[in-house]
Amino acid sequence: MYRSNTCGDLRTSDIGSEVVLSGWVHKIRDKGFVVWVDLRDRYGITQLVFDQDRTSKVLLEQAWELGRETVIQVVGNVIERASKNPNIPTGDIEVLVNGLKVLNKSILPPFTIEDETDGGEDIRMKYRYLDIRRNPVKNNLIFRHKVTMEVRKYLSDQGFIDVETPYLIKSTPEGARDFLVPSRMNEGQFYALPQSPQTFKQLLMVGGMDKYFQIVKCFRDEDLRADRQPEFTQIDCEMAFVEQEDVLNTFEGLTRHLLKEIKGVEIGAFPRMTYDEAMKLYGNDKPDIRFGMQFGELNAVAQHRDFNVFNAAELVVGIAVPSAGSYTRKEIDSLIDWVKRPQVGAKGMVYVKCNEDGTYKSSVDKFYDQEDLAKWAELTGANPGDLICILSGSIKETRAQLSALRMELAERLGLRKPSEFAPLWVVDFPLLELDEETGTYHAMHHPFTSPKPGQLELLETNPSAVKANAYDLVLNGNEIGGGSIRIHDKETQAIMFKHLGFTPQQAKEQFGFLMDAFQYGAPPHGGIAFGLDRLVAILGGQETIRDFIAFPKNNSGRDVMIDAPATIDEEQLKELHLKLDL
Amino acid sequence: MYRSNTCGDLRTSDIGSEVVLSGWVHKIRDKGFVVWVDLRDRYGITQLVFDQDRTSKVLLEQAWELGRETVIQVVGNVIERASKNPNIPTGDIEVLVNGLKVLNKSILPPFTIEDETDGGEDIRMKYRYLDIRRNPVKNNLIFRHKVTMEVRKYLSDQGFIDVETPYLIKSTPEGARDFLVPSRMNEGQFYALPQSPQTFKQLLMVGGMDKYFQIVKCFRDEDLRADRQPEFTQIDCEMAFVEQEDVLNTFEGLTRHLLKEIKGVEIGAFPRMTYDEAMKLYGNDKPDIRFGMQFGELNAVAQHRDFNVFNAAELVVGIAVPSAGSYTRKEIDSLIDWVKRPQVGAKGMVYVKCNEDGTYKSSVDKFYDQEDLAKWAELTGANPGDLICILSGSIKETRAQLSALRMELAERLGLRKPSEFAPLWVVDFPLLELDEETGTYHAMHHPFTSPKPGQLELLETNPSAVKANAYDLVLNGNEIGGGSIRIHDKETQAIMFKHLGFTPQQAKEQFGFLMDAFQYGAPPHGGIAFGLDRLVAILGGQETIRDFIAFPKNNSGRDVMIDAPATIDEEQLKELHLKLDL
Repeated sequence: MYRSNTCGDLRTSDIGSEVVLSGWVHKIRDKGFVVWVDLRDRYGITQLVFDQDRTSKVLLEQAWELGRETVIQVVGNVIERASKNPNIPTGDIEVLVNGLKVLNKSILPPFTIEDETDGGEDIRMKYRYLDIRRNPVKNNLIFRHKVTMEVRKYLSDQGFIDVETPYLIKSTPEGARDFLVPSRMNEGQFYALPQSPQTFKQLLMVGGMDKYFQIVKCFRDEDLRADRQPEFTQIDCEMAFVEQEDVLNTFEGLTRHLLKEIKGVEIGAFPRMTYDEAMKLYGNDKPDIRFGMQFGELNAVAQHRDFNVFNAAELVVGIAVPSAGSYTRKEIDSLIDWVKRPQVGAKGMVYVKCNEDGTYKSSVDKFYDQEDLAKWAELTGANPGDLICILSGSIKETRAQLSALRMELAERLGLRKPSEFAPLWVVDFPLLELDEETGTYHAMHHPFTSPKPGQLELLETNPSAVKANAYDLVLNGNEIGGGSIRIHDKETQAIMFKHLGFTPQQAKEQFGFLMDAFQYGAPPHGGIAFGLDRLVAILGGQETIRDFIAFPKNNSGRDVMIDAPATIDEEQLKELHLKLDL
Repeated sequence: MYRSNTCGDLRTSDIGSEVVLSGWVHKIRDKGFVVWVDLRDRYGITQLVFDQDRTSKVLLEQAWELGRETVIQVVGNVIERASKNPNIPTGDIEVLVNGLKVLNKSILPPFTIEDETDGGEDIRMKYRYLDIRRNPVKNNLIFRHKVTMEVRKYLSDQGFIDVETPYLIKSTPEGARDFLVPSRMNEGQFYALPQSPQTFKQLLMVGGMDKYFQIVKCFRDEDLRADRQPEFTQIDCEMAFVEQEDVLNTFEGLTRHLLKEIKGVEIGAFPRMTYDEAMKLYGNDKPDIRFGMQFGELNAVAQHRDFNVFNAAELVVGIAVPSAGSYTRKEIDSLIDWVKRPQVGAKGMVYVKCNEDGTYKSSVDKFYDQEDLAKWAELTGANPGDLICILSGSIKETRAQLSALRMELAERLGLRKPSEFAPLWVVDFPLLELDEETGTYHAMHHPFTSPKPGQLELLETNPSAVKANAYDLVLNGNEIGGGSIRIHDKETQAIMFKHLGFTPQQAKEQFGFLMDAFQYGAPPHGGIAFGLDRLVAILGGQETIRDFIAFPKNNSGRDVMIDAPATIDEEQLKELHLKLDL
């Protein structure tokens, strides 16, 4: 037996007991005649004490030799601590050691195993197994476990069945790129790793398994943006005999359960907003509604003067920044520089200072009078003391730019509080999205999403106007889940494929099995998928998913710890009937 | 709202309520003036009734048109059934329909959706979504869900943390073949899909996450034997600061919990047996101990006569088959033919009938007298009325042959009762296994398994004799789990790699990250992995894992439903820097 207790266990009630502890040497304070060792394991830290009066000479000498991160086992007696440490649960006691065994030594770690470590991102990733010893990473992984357990419990209690779908499936070149797996037994053929279990969960609905869930790895071979992973985890769900309302209620229930059980936060009915409203009010389909700064569209009150920049714009739109009316010229100039950065791309920014005395001072006083500016303040909801920031240009670009500015300002003003949770359903997404480069339409959600009832005909005449039975769950400005009511009949599915540019032959080759399945009594169905990595990060009050993944990959898709991917043997290539073509 | 109740809900207490049901038309009995429809969903069957007195003409006509597997929604009133059906929970009521909507039609399914279907294996796999509608498959999937929920609950309650390990890892050509995944972003390099998360779970132990579990897909590109799958699911577990005893107790607890919660079976301490004992007594390292027929080794009492077959044999060994003494000559001949099949490979079989009067009649009466045969009966535990079957030859082959015969006879005699559960720990496995073809040694469990204390030196002199801290959990003659205490220091690991034929360079390239990790204070650790597919099948009283997998692959590794693997676009190959080499 390596231990009678963990290093987080012992309290004053244990004083007098003999205990066996195992763990890592976290810190040593060596006064010569007395040595204190902080012994650490997953559960906490317990102070060990060796001293020349009460500890044998041999043992004291052993203690002098100990180094950080050495793994030891000790036997000793729990005694009361002279100077107590109120900061840790075991701070009232210490263990007077009467036996010590070194279980394994450690060379000097490349960074300190402390909450605030001296190791940079790269070195921590290479030695991730040491990084996991640190409380912040360890606690994130335990937190993730708690979230997934609660998800499973809730859904299982609601009658959902966890069904494993296959990982070796078929490539569907449409959409994001698949990771491919050459088949040795089927020469020249490839499996693909799933981007999601979408078609399989729909087939489960055809199979009558009317409530399905799975926490499942998915794969996308995309050029990685910061904080994207080639493999990521979804909470994947589907229900049959449901309308959109049933799906929203069910997963609002799940999210409310998580917020309550995990964060102790009780939240009422989640607000809902259409996609069009979200774009109009926040310039974004995943608005952070923890704070205001809603968009005020100013075309009607800003295009009647000689200011050509506004007159030529498709959209003139502003936000009121609370208490920013006192910004200096320099501060405002830096905001203007910020929106002009290529990542944002605005050409400039008009501003109005709302003075405390009810007057206005703007960068366009030459063109607009106080009455004009008062109207702008009204439409943006600005109060005395606020700063109105106004951008103009094409609707799409201007909204995106002002949304970026809104988020940046909220960040700077501390309005994005990690402990505050503001969920939001965004509904009525467009069915299709125009690819401006190619002039073709893509499915905004995916090709299996159903159009709103009665809008199928509109696909022929005005595809952009067709709305879908599609919804996103947004939490604090992040999309944490998205789903739709699916098409469940072969004819509608065929029409969708046609509008997405599939020939009947292509549709059959890639999704024939699904269209066939729809002929055998497919029930109405719909579902949702949550991005678990992001959900956990946001519940954890953070936004970087990498800190909630045990062994993440870097931005080139590499695992720098095990050094993968790597070259393979010629023999392996041959067995797979492949040659490199570099 | 598609339904107020499911098809398994309604009871006599609901009589008088108006309900809405949705489901599949399971069966129709059409008497013209009255039509009964069995409406089916995941939860059961509810009888619908339409009749000319109480149902509108239009509705009755609609009912006449219904076909099997059509998806319908009905509104109606719950009424008492005239002739009750005690075989189903809803058998006391029926629903008098006053509204019907066809939600989706069905063409004729390729097999009947009945517990005993007319569809063969191939057609059921192609239309797996229809197969899942059948109770046996549906119930297996729900059963699997229950098992995994209980596993998670038990382990989480014991402090285990579910940690997701990566799927895109590095190929290690040693052992079974990896499935490989070409990397587009890292030209000429490949990921591999994990055969198990072995090294990652060990790194989690190095990281201090001292109790880990995961229910995880694993991948092996092997030539598939019957009832093997290229992707399979493991309950993967690891613990730090443990000895073998701790691991056995923990997972005996898990297995006992499952047997109790899932099957209602209470089982005491699991028996244990060494590998050597298991081979001696059952000729097999995963003996089914639900029945006797232990091996009796007869060398000492069978090699003293002129029977050269026995005299030349390394091993003469027999089993007593209960109550088979009355087998006819024809029945015994068929047994002899059975052991001579190439799959078994015995050269012949000697038998002894133990007559009820205490005398013996054998096929070798020419060589042995009654006294000899009495000794054989004693050593095999044969009683009057039994049949002793004796094989001889090399130890390894003869044991395997007699073990096969033992299992076959137990099957024929109905001794392998699916409702009876007999777990068994087999311990003290050999560390290494000699590959007789190449003359080299392989790790019997895997290269990370530790030898028994003090046996490291024996590796140099007598590698076959070294025992490992390795154990299997056997249930009803199936290995359901296997594990070991691992090596946790760099030096021992290096010695192991050397004995497995790795050059230091190869060891470093493939497992350098693990050996490095061992230098930073790796704790003693060990674990186990259960084969979930098999565990669930056995708990379900069956032995075919395919029936417990939603979308299994066939023996060529194909998914015949979606038709994968498949050829891919030339463009995709090019992006992966590959050419086919057929």
